[in-house]
Amino acid sequence: MAAPRNIARLATRLSSRRSAISSSSSSTSTLRRATKPITEFIRNGSTLPPRSSQFAKATTDHLNALKAISSSTLSTLDNTASADELKTYNDDWMNKYHGKSQIVVKPKTTEEVSKIMKYCYANDLAVVPQGGNTGLVGGSNPVHDEIILNLTNLNQIRSFDEVSGVLVADGGVILETADHYLAEKGFIFPLDLGAKGSCHIGGNVSTNAGGLRLLRYGSLHGTVLGLEVVLPDGTIWNGLSKLRKDNTGFDIKQLFIGSEGTIGIITAISILCPRRPSAMNVAVFSLDSYEAVQKVFAEAKGHLGEILSAFEFFDKQSYALVKKHQEENGGDRKVFETEGDFYCLIETGGSNAEHDEAKLTGLLEHLMENEMVLDGVLAQDSTQFQSLWSLRELVPESAGKAGSVYKYDVSVPVGKMYGLVEKMRTKLREGGILEGDGKKDGPIRAVAGYGHMGDGNLHINIVANKYTDEVEKIIEPYIYEIVAENEGSISAEHGLGVMKAPYIGYSKNETSIELMKKVKTLFDPKGLLNPYKYIV
Amino acid sequence: MAAPRNIARLATRLSSRRSAISSSSSSTSTLRRATKPITEFIRNGSTLPPRSSQFAKATTDHLNALKAISSSTLSTLDNTASADELKTYNDDWMNKYHGKSQIVVKPKTTEEVSKIMKYCYANDLAVVPQGGNTGLVGGSNPVHDEIILNLTNLNQIRSFDEVSGVLVADGGVILETADHYLAEKGFIFPLDLGAKGSCHIGGNVSTNAGGLRLLRYGSLHGTVLGLEVVLPDGTIWNGLSKLRKDNTGFDIKQLFIGSEGTIGIITAISILCPRRPSAMNVAVFSLDSYEAVQKVFAEAKGHLGEILSAFEFFDKQSYALVKKHQEENGGDRKVFETEGDFYCLIETGGSNAEHDEAKLTGLLEHLMENEMVLDGVLAQDSTQFQSLWSLRELVPESAGKAGSVYKYDVSVPVGKMYGLVEKMRTKLREGGILEGDGKKDGPIRAVAGYGHMGDGNLHINIVANKYTDEVEKIIEPYIYEIVAENEGSISAEHGLGVMKAPYIGYSKNETSIELMKKVKTLFDPKGLLNPYKYIV
Repeated sequence: MAAPRNIARLATRLSSRRSAISSSSSSTSTLRRATKPITEFIRNGSTLPPRSSQFAKATTDHLNALKAISSSTLSTLDNTASADELKTYNDDWMNKYHGKSQIVVKPKTTEEVSKIMKYCYANDLAVVPQGGNTGLVGGSNPVHDEIILNLTNLNQIRSFDEVSGVLVADGGVILETADHYLAEKGFIFPLDLGAKGSCHIGGNVSTNAGGLRLLRYGSLHGTVLGLEVVLPDGTIWNGLSKLRKDNTGFDIKQLFIGSEGTIGIITAISILCPRRPSAMNVAVFSLDSYEAVQKVFAEAKGHLGEILSAFEFFDKQSYALVKKHQEENGGDRKVFETEGDFYCLIETGGSNAEHDEAKLTGLLEHLMENEMVLDGVLAQDSTQFQSLWSLRELVPESAGKAGSVYKYDVSVPVGKMYGLVEKMRTKLREGGILEGDGKKDGPIRAVAGYGHMGDGNLHINIVANKYTDEVEKIIEPYIYEIVAENEGSISAEHGLGVMKAPYIGYSKNETSIELMKKVKTLFDPKGLLNPYKYIV
Repeated sequence: MAAPRNIARLATRLSSRRSAISSSSSSTSTLRRATKPITEFIRNGSTLPPRSSQFAKATTDHLNALKAISSSTLSTLDNTASADELKTYNDDWMNKYHGKSQIVVKPKTTEEVSKIMKYCYANDLAVVPQGGNTGLVGGSNPVHDEIILNLTNLNQIRSFDEVSGVLVADGGVILETADHYLAEKGFIFPLDLGAKGSCHIGGNVSTNAGGLRLLRYGSLHGTVLGLEVVLPDGTIWNGLSKLRKDNTGFDIKQLFIGSEGTIGIITAISILCPRRPSAMNVAVFSLDSYEAVQKVFAEAKGHLGEILSAFEFFDKQSYALVKKHQEENGGDRKVFETEGDFYCLIETGGSNAEHDEAKLTGLLEHLMENEMVLDGVLAQDSTQFQSLWSLRELVPESAGKAGSVYKYDVSVPVGKMYGLVEKMRTKLREGGILEGDGKKDGPIRAVAGYGHMGDGNLHINIVANKYTDEVEKIIEPYIYEIVAENEGSISAEHGLGVMKAPYIGYSKNETSIELMKKVKTLFDPKGLLNPYKYIV
């Protein structure tokens, strides 16, 4: 095989160019924001659990007591808000979950949160904590008439230490606001999400958000140094440490990271923020097998080491969906001289543009010499940077345009990741519903696999003509079974919420579930906080 | 001020040299091992708590039952071991803590650990889990006659995935063994300790060990992906996930990280291992103030970014102790042309030697141009690499040679770190016991401050003529008070064990302590596991 032309051409050009895309730290953020967030569609899950009679029904007496605590309280009970106004809080952004709460409280201080919880606890009123309401599993909306405790007004940055990089801020601070604040000081929030313009950092921590920077900066379990939490009975737990090292007892804060508001309300976080990379690069490759993708991943880690910031992959089915979508929108670009069965995207972020380019050139040359890739393209400017990222980021949107999508977000060991997609195809083929293979008009048009290779996070999109019980029964619970067989997770980053709570048994064993229930009861014996979800 | 000569000379030489020290990944490990581990001396703390009558006294019946479970059981009860042989397990390596256990069980499998715990739980026998027995706070030795469950025989590497970098290994694997195994594959264990030749990775996780690589790779709360734990009642909890992302419930494993064997016995860990850096550099600077150290720390983070692997500091009192110790041992080296009130050590570890040197040169030039340092020295070869590290690593040993040392390991925000040392000096001066200041023969000869600047981890060494009540009463609880005033931790990395358990109130508030007690009771209602320690 001849050396791929694109790469050969680009590799020689690489060292001479000066990357416009990496001239300032803020440009990165702009680039990311300019890209459309990945919209996620999730089907309506099982029937919602019934309302618990253990919880009181909110009355005007309750409302008046809450208004005395927090002036920023809205309710349909006294017409301070219309039912339509409360819909913003009752419904999720996908318009999939619809709560029936009559009261929204928006406290301005931790003390107000504490008083609200104390009152609700004493009066058996169930409460759903709500941040930016950008979740994908119905975790921040009422299932029935729970009081909504929205943290929008708790939005102050409390302190930032430029020596240690430790930021302390209220839970209701919007992620993008926090990141802009840090950017001005040359630092970066160690988490990036499509929903950054709306989501709250407290919500990010309570859902253990993953996002785009996880490969580089690790999970919030490592970067969060401390939390301030209001417990279900109103007790304020001040665990707002700014210390990187503290070995004086159980690391209680870890329980709240990813607890989805079921055992406490995060009112402030303390987090370690790294320096902002001053240089960014991105390259996309075509490859002939998933084995090749794995090999390139290993090589990328070896050559790029500490500057590797993202490693994403997608299959030819995903790429076909994106190309079709782009063609339909007037785009007609030939990206690769040689297309492949697989594609991967590599992003670097470092402190020295020349060094990063040299490392990337070294990787390109190695991949070429060893014929590990079919072709490759490297971004030459900010437009190309965004355009190459869009090949990966447009997959979910393109799938949505192609039909009704059964969408799964799972996590399995990297080596087993693509096997799940293949098993799914076999299952659908055996069921006689996959298009092709002599079945020209099967209800399933495509099965696309893509995701965060670096994190072992796989997205499977099954594109159907329409949603039918026949199709669903073939997919589920099979998809959960093969995740479980591979010791995977049925929710890599979206959480459990109300949607996946019934399926936890596919990811967690009996002992784990029993321990989780004990922890829930320990912190919230009345079960008032975010009921009907997570662990039920 | 003229540009420091050492730096000017070295900076120009820097780009032309080829670092012998960074020629292979294994050399780093060799260098570290060649350096003497930092020996830590800690005074005997408060009186030990009395034996609890709730625990059964071990009999020959118990012994026989345990021997039936695990053939590798030693006891003085049936003379399968002498009291002297059991001392290895009963005493800590500093010979400070002395247990009186008559039974040591050394299971070979997780199932054996489970059966042992099940039996002990049913029979009210208290148990102390023991790894490499290298701790500094008496956490792995019996306080009275607890049965010792030693994990030495549980020492198999279970699997390693070269694509994801995930290692799964038994808790009893020695840290150095794990790291050597990984080195052969081009990976590194994300933790390094002086005790690496003896300590167990299960013990590292259960004590949340910090060590030398924390600045670069973060804490074990971020790198540990899963655990297998035997609970106090013998239940095996398989939480041995290999996934980077899993948002399906409370992250229960986090409770065991740093729990010091009080709620479960870690029988295996799953941990994410990064690629091994192929290049290492080290430089030491003299500076005129602690403010300058902080500025250089910020500059180092900015210039070195992702390759900064250690930032250590020590004051002139520490350096004086080291120089004296070196002179007494025949060393007579002039390191700095201009000495200072403070010193800092910067280590880099990256994937490209030339790039790293260029980044370091850039930092040196910046520090020189802005007159932020008085002088600086850069290692030219492996001997110098080790010799420069020894300036920092010899501080505790040198203090020990100079007198009786009151030794503290605390954590405070970086900006407030050195203020603690100054407050301590003022306190001793006010007490009229600090040498100098018109008191030529005070019992306190020196107060030295040094530590892991990058982690906010300060060591204070107070060198006295001898240990006296008069001196101790002036130091304690004052030292804990000023740590608490600064929202610090009274134990940055050593843990609580039996030594610091009584002082937890200085670092944790009432709510935290109450939550800790609830967690302990939840997992270990009989309080059988590692009693008299941690949270009491």
